[in-house]
Amino acid sequence: MKESELTTLLHTMTLEEKIGQLVQLSSNFYSDAEGALTGPMAQMGVTEKLVADSGSTLGASGARQIIDLQKRHLEASRLQIPLLVMADVVHGYKTIFPIPLAIGCSWHPELAEEAARIAAREAAVSGVHVVFAPMVDLVRDPRWGRVMESTGEDAFLNSVFARAFVQGFQGNDLKNDRDRVAACVKHFAAYGAAEGGREYNTTDLSEWRMREEYLPAYKAAVDAGCKMIMTSFNTIKGVPSSANRWLLRQVLRNEWAFDGTIISDWGAVRELLAHGVAEDEQEAAEKAIKAGVDIEMMTLCYPHALENLVADGRIPVSLIDQAVFRILNLKNDLGLFESPYRGVDEEKEKEIVYCAAHREQARKLAEESCVLLKNNGILPLQGHAKIALIGPFADSGDLLGSWSWKGEPRDTQTLKQAFLKDASFDTFFAKGSGITQTNSHFLEEAVVAAKQSDVVILAVGESSAMSGEASSRTRITLPDCQQKLFAALKATGRPIVTLLFNGRPLELGSLAEQTDALLEAWFPGSEGAEAIVNLLTGKTNPSGKLTMSFPRTVGQIPVYYNSFNTGRPLAENPQEPKYVSKYIDCPNEPLFAFGYGLSYTQFMYENLKLSASRLMEDEQLIVTVTVANVGDRPGADVVQLYLRDVAAETVRPIKELKGFKKIFLKPGARAEVSFTINEPMLRYVHSDLSSRSDSGRFEIGVGDSSARTLNAAFDFVKKDGVPR
Amino acid sequence: MKESELTTLLHTMTLEEKIGQLVQLSSNFYSDAEGALTGPMAQMGVTEKLVADSGSTLGASGARQIIDLQKRHLEASRLQIPLLVMADVVHGYKTIFPIPLAIGCSWHPELAEEAARIAAREAAVSGVHVVFAPMVDLVRDPRWGRVMESTGEDAFLNSVFARAFVQGFQGNDLKNDRDRVAACVKHFAAYGAAEGGREYNTTDLSEWRMREEYLPAYKAAVDAGCKMIMTSFNTIKGVPSSANRWLLRQVLRNEWAFDGTIISDWGAVRELLAHGVAEDEQEAAEKAIKAGVDIEMMTLCYPHALENLVADGRIPVSLIDQAVFRILNLKNDLGLFESPYRGVDEEKEKEIVYCAAHREQARKLAEESCVLLKNNGILPLQGHAKIALIGPFADSGDLLGSWSWKGEPRDTQTLKQAFLKDASFDTFFAKGSGITQTNSHFLEEAVVAAKQSDVVILAVGESSAMSGEASSRTRITLPDCQQKLFAALKATGRPIVTLLFNGRPLELGSLAEQTDALLEAWFPGSEGAEAIVNLLTGKTNPSGKLTMSFPRTVGQIPVYYNSFNTGRPLAENPQEPKYVSKYIDCPNEPLFAFGYGLSYTQFMYENLKLSASRLMEDEQLIVTVTVANVGDRPGADVVQLYLRDVAAETVRPIKELKGFKKIFLKPGARAEVSFTINEPMLRYVHSDLSSRSDSGRFEIGVGDSSARTLNAAFDFVKKDGVPR
Repeated sequence: MKESELTTLLHTMTLEEKIGQLVQLSSNFYSDAEGALTGPMAQMGVTEKLVADSGSTLGASGARQIIDLQKRHLEASRLQIPLLVMADVVHGYKTIFPIPLAIGCSWHPELAEEAARIAAREAAVSGVHVVFAPMVDLVRDPRWGRVMESTGEDAFLNSVFARAFVQGFQGNDLKNDRDRVAACVKHFAAYGAAEGGREYNTTDLSEWRMREEYLPAYKAAVDAGCKMIMTSFNTIKGVPSSANRWLLRQVLRNEWAFDGTIISDWGAVRELLAHGVAEDEQEAAEKAIKAGVDIEMMTLCYPHALENLVADGRIPVSLIDQAVFRILNLKNDLGLFESPYRGVDEEKEKEIVYCAAHREQARKLAEESCVLLKNNGILPLQGHAKIALIGPFADSGDLLGSWSWKGEPRDTQTLKQAFLKDASFDTFFAKGSGITQTNSHFLEEAVVAAKQSDVVILAVGESSAMSGEASSRTRITLPDCQQKLFAALKATGRPIVTLLFNGRPLELGSLAEQTDALLEAWFPGSEGAEAIVNLLTGKTNPSGKLTMSFPRTVGQIPVYYNSFNTGRPLAENPQEPKYVSKYIDCPNEPLFAFGYGLSYTQFMYENLKLSASRLMEDEQLIVTVTVANVGDRPGADVVQLYLRDVAAETVRPIKELKGFKKIFLKPGARAEVSFTINEPMLRYVHSDLSSRSDSGRFEIGVGDSSARTLNAAFDFVKKDGVPR
Repeated sequence: MKESELTTLLHTMTLEEKIGQLVQLSSNFYSDAEGALTGPMAQMGVTEKLVADSGSTLGASGARQIIDLQKRHLEASRLQIPLLVMADVVHGYKTIFPIPLAIGCSWHPELAEEAARIAAREAAVSGVHVVFAPMVDLVRDPRWGRVMESTGEDAFLNSVFARAFVQGFQGNDLKNDRDRVAACVKHFAAYGAAEGGREYNTTDLSEWRMREEYLPAYKAAVDAGCKMIMTSFNTIKGVPSSANRWLLRQVLRNEWAFDGTIISDWGAVRELLAHGVAEDEQEAAEKAIKAGVDIEMMTLCYPHALENLVADGRIPVSLIDQAVFRILNLKNDLGLFESPYRGVDEEKEKEIVYCAAHREQARKLAEESCVLLKNNGILPLQGHAKIALIGPFADSGDLLGSWSWKGEPRDTQTLKQAFLKDASFDTFFAKGSGITQTNSHFLEEAVVAAKQSDVVILAVGESSAMSGEASSRTRITLPDCQQKLFAALKATGRPIVTLLFNGRPLELGSLAEQTDALLEAWFPGSEGAEAIVNLLTGKTNPSGKLTMSFPRTVGQIPVYYNSFNTGRPLAENPQEPKYVSKYIDCPNEPLFAFGYGLSYTQFMYENLKLSASRLMEDEQLIVTVTVANVGDRPGADVVQLYLRDVAAETVRPIKELKGFKKIFLKPGARAEVSFTINEPMLRYVHSDLSSRSDSGRFEIGVGDSSARTLNAAFDFVKKDGVPR
């Protein structure tokens, strides 16, 4: 449709029909089964008319179901406005990729884009138009279960992945490329800062910090053209996001010029009552629509109240028209008016969903997402004919992680199955423990298996349900029974390779010291088991790097690499016994830092050079470093560029990621890696909230981890010469 | 001096002399000993001239020393400007009162005022003019060691105590009342929100939250007339307090009309370099003086740089003149020009410092500061002839806590000494364990002692050095060896009364369940042992109530009573298994809540009445409740009034303390307690940062703890009738 046709359509609609477009209901309301609109749904106040008028649905899937649903909807809708179908396709549709926190650890945005493209392809052919992804919340609190949905603690890295995911989902021609879907970026904004890591809790940040650290990844997604944004459950400066005019109107619409659709999270408009910023549904509706929420998900404040609000003159009908127009526009962007059955195809669905090519890609990404945290030389396995594969994840299909919509743990290859395919091993298997409970029989079996082996592969962790939404934990250790299992195996004297399956950084305690090797596998997805066997056997060389710090203890939270120096930095006064910024019972540093991860080969960094010692405002400066593979295996490393603004108008992080390159080197090979530094990279948010750069000294660090860099420095000079 | 004379004096001063007034050095610079200005001090760049010109000193004490020091200073100072003497008199000079966190738990501001009056009296006679107290930082993170210096987690309660302390220190006629000193309120601002509870760390809060929760107590101190304010070490919105113009100029000077003196914390001006907001001392000096710091404590950016800054035209000399004038003005307010030896008196010093009357008052406050957290009926001790007094605090004088300047642990009566004075007990004593280390001999002795007794009194906790400045902990449990001691004693089967000595809420784990009684003694001060014996024996009835929540686990931090409801409150959906704001492994509530504390008698609350169901803007509403002592002992209870604004423009706390009264009742007696509610009590900070009230419904809770109240509600109606 042309825009003028959309406008005409809008003018043809009754107010009731317009309001219907703003409503999103779950797919069960659209069932043709008897009783779909009785019981709780009827109690909610959903009428057949409202369902017919509704603009979108969530949670429907499968080509057959969507075709039926759309058909019935077009028959019921007076103006035959097609229904938008949305779904929680977060890290794959049925071919499940590693959880986003793991994808971040690949430091390989091209693979992330490809994963999103595949997820879009499977979703689109199954009838989905919009996916509720990517989630780009900056996360620093591993107590929060939803850190698994984010790519980590860094604004720059999250922005890179935000762009990659949006591009992968949407492609370049959404209307005609029927393999793509619209991306709904979430959760706007700063949901990752939920207080105490407690799900749905308040966030409180200065606007300065929000703009500098928490907002950039959403902005990157907007700039990449994402079609939709979802509001977060939390408050921002005392006002819930779904009622926050400053956030949605000033920042998102005015400053960022976002012209896509804004949707509330599940129930979030009516939750304004619980938040205590609305007395009733009418006030909730008024605040949400005025703030800029176009689509109300799963509550009915809009249909219950908007007509009255217009009639009472409390809101102009133009506010509703704008919201409706954005929704119609999205449907048009997707080509739904011309092709309401866009993309959906029962035959093709059978062919491509969970196809071998897709799963192959999932395996590849899983291999790059695992992070080797420790290796005393036992890995890769070689000459270990007899292995004991032990632990609650040793024969478990629970490798997909939370938000794995169509993924089937019971169809997912387990580690045991993958190992048994490799004839070079004599594998002894024992469960050893459940996730949170065990018995002495399990433990005894495990010890017997261990004693028969040359090496123990211990697969431990959290169940999928222990991270993700509404799975905040105050203790982030391995469950006690699994710690006991480790201790019992350690007592056998056999070397132990520990595999971790988890959706958040864990507090590892003495296990990290006592294990011989430690591979962070996260939830690696459909082909995770295969990927892990490839890594353990050295068929593939680990190359993942952490994107979220591992605290030594939960009492150290938040711990993240890009903190501020404080006025009394411990690092600059390591001998000072007392009056520096530290704890009396724990180092300041995390156990494993952002950017850290090992390989089976060794990389040497040398010869850090700057093209000049001074960078003029309109010029650029080239940083080069030589990286050599001095080990005996081919492998990939992530070369990381960090900057530090030595003295600024506000405090600045002690280091800040500004670039990275993942390079592959054969043994003995060397590469010169270069980064370009220019003025926009030196900008930061000043206390007046403007983003700009100042003249002054900058330190550079280049290395294979935030904790290990070669260092240099340069002076930056603004044209106007005005000092800070 | 008249103001005109001060102005004349100012005009007589050279620029160098003026800058000298802005410098504060520790007392050792003023020693007449050889070598005082050599070594590190000379390296700092301190010259004799600078010492002679300096305006103030810190850390000097004792009538003789101050008389000598002032005499020498007046001889050295060209214009005979007396030196201001400041000191860390935080909870007593030599007569040490309970730590402020304990004083808060008394809910008895009159006693706090009296404690400050006594501290002032002892300090003044010993030559001190300004005390670095009260500390009024709102605190919610028990990892932070300095929570012991605050009265707790509530803005209203902290404000009440801020006023009481300022009034107690300063009195009503500072110039003529030589028993009083000037109060320096600290740490401006929001130091209590240090990230991760790590000392000197960044704080980050929205301005909305700062104004609503963190700033009111400082404001209360300013309104009470405090003469000085100290900047905090932390950043606010990215700018360290000592360089924060918004904080010091806009909020403190302009909005609050504070015309007293602003002093940096120790070294904080030069620390602007480490913070990364100044390249050198000159920039640090420029930022600090422009922001409004009058006195630079213990670094020399001002003397090194201010002359140049004036010469270069970067700052007007008027900026220096204003700062100097404020300092001269304070000296004049203290009457120092007429009486440079103000208050100091060697004879009187001997007579009143640590005198019996002062210590008596310290005991009284200690008795009201201890909080009875649990009692299964074992307390008060009666019919227990044989007691085993065990633990690292059983015979320790370390009862004073951090910041107990002239207090002497070795002169402080220990629990053992206090118990031995009571002939009614047969006391078996055993140390049982050190604070953090123990041996099997200690443990065996303790078990033997326990077995001989009817009841074990177990005195455990943190040493003074484990809280206070630069004593942040990631683990806030009792040290392991003390937990072991408890377990061993528990195994004897004897009933255990646990006494806690600590500067922060602790994570008590299973001890709280297993002990028969639990008395939180904090660091109770000079007469703490006597107070505790009085409480244990029932001579005095406990009446303290917590002012800071006890978390169940460190992973629950921050946990505080006046949190926001969120959009998915657990309390309103207790049956919901997953999608509410909670942890999957821990309740939301703290172990012991704000306002909680037991008595040996029982109080019954009934008959909550409102004078009307509607409050008009210019009227007032009376809330009354009947409190009856239905137990068999006389006792005091703290009747607490909480409000909740049901729907507002921003989110509002689920409950908020708005009033309290500590009442004493004989057995069988009843009292009607009333509170007045008026419009100013209903104001809150809106999203535009203005503070005002709105029409709407308010819920009232009245009870003996934030967790247990009788409830009612009223409607508030603004005159203009404009809804929110």
